[in-house]
Amino acid sequence: MARVDRERRRWWDGAVDFEQMWRDLEPLGRSASSGGYFRQPFGSAERECTAWFHEQAAARGLDVAADGNGNLVAWWRVPDARHPATVTGSHLDSVLDGGAYDGPLGVVSAFAAVDLMRERGFEPATSIGVSAFVEEEGSRFGIACLGSRLLSGQLSPDQARELRDRDGVFLQDAMEQAGLEPSLGPSTLLDGVSCFLELHVEQGRDLVDRDVPVGVASAIWPHGRYRFDLAGEANHAGTTRMEDRHDPMLTYAMTVLAANKQARVAGQRATFGRVEVRPNGTNAVPSAVTAWLDARAESTERLQALVADVERLATERAGRDGTTVEVTVESQSPEVAFDEDLAGRLAGLGPWPVIPTMAGHDAGVLASSGLRSGMLFVRNPTGVSHSPAEHAGTADCLAGVEALADALQGIAGGFLPDDSGGER
Amino acid sequence: MARVDRERRRWWDGAVDFEQMWRDLEPLGRSASSGGYFRQPFGSAERECTAWFHEQAAARGLDVAADGNGNLVAWWRVPDARHPATVTGSHLDSVLDGGAYDGPLGVVSAFAAVDLMRERGFEPATSIGVSAFVEEEGSRFGIACLGSRLLSGQLSPDQARELRDRDGVFLQDAMEQAGLEPSLGPSTLLDGVSCFLELHVEQGRDLVDRDVPVGVASAIWPHGRYRFDLAGEANHAGTTRMEDRHDPMLTYAMTVLAANKQARVAGQRATFGRVEVRPNGTNAVPSAVTAWLDARAESTERLQALVADVERLATERAGRDGTTVEVTVESQSPEVAFDEDLAGRLAGLGPWPVIPTMAGHDAGVLASSGLRSGMLFVRNPTGVSHSPAEHAGTADCLAGVEALADALQGIAGGFLPDDSGGER
Repeated sequence: MARVDRERRRWWDGAVDFEQMWRDLEPLGRSASSGGYFRQPFGSAERECTAWFHEQAAARGLDVAADGNGNLVAWWRVPDARHPATVTGSHLDSVLDGGAYDGPLGVVSAFAAVDLMRERGFEPATSIGVSAFVEEEGSRFGIACLGSRLLSGQLSPDQARELRDRDGVFLQDAMEQAGLEPSLGPSTLLDGVSCFLELHVEQGRDLVDRDVPVGVASAIWPHGRYRFDLAGEANHAGTTRMEDRHDPMLTYAMTVLAANKQARVAGQRATFGRVEVRPNGTNAVPSAVTAWLDARAESTERLQALVADVERLATERAGRDGTTVEVTVESQSPEVAFDEDLAGRLAGLGPWPVIPTMAGHDAGVLASSGLRSGMLFVRNPTGVSHSPAEHAGTADCLAGVEALADALQGIAGGFLPDDSGGER
Repeated sequence: MARVDRERRRWWDGAVDFEQMWRDLEPLGRSASSGGYFRQPFGSAERECTAWFHEQAAARGLDVAADGNGNLVAWWRVPDARHPATVTGSHLDSVLDGGAYDGPLGVVSAFAAVDLMRERGFEPATSIGVSAFVEEEGSRFGIACLGSRLLSGQLSPDQARELRDRDGVFLQDAMEQAGLEPSLGPSTLLDGVSCFLELHVEQGRDLVDRDVPVGVASAIWPHGRYRFDLAGEANHAGTTRMEDRHDPMLTYAMTVLAANKQARVAGQRATFGRVEVRPNGTNAVPSAVTAWLDARAESTERLQALVADVERLATERAGRDGTTVEVTVESQSPEVAFDEDLAGRLAGLGPWPVIPTMAGHDAGVLASSGLRSGMLFVRNPTGVSHSPAEHAGTADCLAGVEALADALQGIAGGFLPDDSGGER
């Protein structure tokens, strides 16, 4: 470890301070009570993060390009028609009460990789960009990877224009309130880009179990979000006999347990993490419960079977409760397999294992659009994610930066065959 | 029915219009989407209701007295030391998305009873007051019958000063923001009052089953509100293996079903109608769930046993989920038996049955404080309460007004023995 640290010090000390980037980001949108982050897209904390992005780009002499969706790329040499470009980055928004690393680690590491390559004296013959995509978490407008989906045409401008947050604010209005000039839809921001890399904190314990600091993604599991609207009849909690009730909270409770059991048995994932109750009063039997199921499985068929099972069990229970169930698919993503050749070469940069992930990422969306994409994961000792407890150690983060710099240099130096380069 | 209607027309036509009172109240705090009422204490809709109260009092030449808790009495002859007074009324606040009748029916009927007594040419030798107590539902500050509890010393000013609403606003600040000058604590508003009557829409189907428009309360079941704080560990909904989770939503779901089952088997009441989830994001396993149990049973012992059973089952499940359970008693009211002699005489005014109720009322709080109190119920065809579907037919409402006027005249005329009169 001492040897590695000495080697690292060479670029670490000479470059813009890696730890200073974290210190700058640390207070932005952080809850004093939980220590978690609330960086909702186009809210003030997330806007401070994008201001930080502009500062970091300026400090390195990178030119920032933006599209009408709010996505950003800071260019080390603006790309032109002759040279295919490579982009690396992640996102700056967080889930509600999220951790420090999910998103920012990929952006900070991208800037640090630029520093490291320069420290090494590397002069790229191609363009290299550092990116930040908006609303990756979908925690405000309900669509994960909103920015990369819009950019790549996987979400239509018409669909985007109808999106509202919990307070009923439209996406476009939220962007305007943040001082942006929205122009939602496919953009030219990644034109000329032949490869995208995303570095991300691991959101599980696979690398912990394997005792390695860095891993490479093979594929992303299919994933969907489903809204369960359970309707009953509001009534007085004291005077209404139990047998006279139509209580959707009971239907909800059974649905939560059923989803958990189905996923547990099948080695899949099913979560009810968000619920809204109407009227949500202590002494009122609710009239309605709306809840969101997040489900993931190893194939689209098995995902759909999982959700169908949960819906069937909910409907059975509703029959007994005198309530109704309506399920709406809010989003559903197929499996994404990352470029196998790229993943193999990334894995060859170190003793890095190739592992699947159950989380959606902008890299997955861009891969689906036909852009050659890959992901690097950095070990998370607790495995905890989407929580203030999310963590990554400094030595592991630096190993991630080195792997990323190695990958970018390799790609710029013809590391990959040109068979799919430039195709989108 | 035709005969009754003709008789009613005599006072109906001559008096301030009963239906006009409802028309005045109808739009105040009503949701255009659900048709339900949102009359939170000291909010603008409830303040419009109290302004209406002042207008009704003024239209009848009644003098309004208020206390520092926000409670109101409109006096037909201000009471003095020589004559014991009788007060009748209810409340003007509603639960979230509540019905039109719960509360307002007792106030409207009290004013209408004054009109009817005057129409009959009745000249009371004693004082008669029409009252409106604040925050009966407990839907803003969490304590049901807040106004009557403070007035009668059953909630201390210190306890009241610590109360906050969901947005963290203190009771006292909410009152000041509503233009009041709060002075929380025991008040002299009901000094000299020897009897209190509350007319209320029935919140069940007992009178429907018995086919009578009016009933008399015998007692109120013991009732409690218990906050369940369930804590786990926030995590990513996709990447966290089901068996690695500490998901308090699962503990909550099992607790909801356990409470329902325990109450159903025992013929009691247990309801989880309010829940708050942190962070409440679709793709996050929650870190914490807070939920409120409303429980009622025929005796305090059985109520406590019910809650202990629910807590035990929740804790067992938490052991399996890797979560924790903490139960806080937010309020607990013992059984209230209304004055038996008064109830018997009220029942004798018509073929009115004497029935228990599972709902708390200001009349119960005042009875607990030693004031002779009674209640009249008016039939609710659906039995539904705390919901926009709550209803009472006009003929039944008028039967209620007549019963109330008969009772007030009887009391003023020495209808009751003087054994407990004037004692508090």
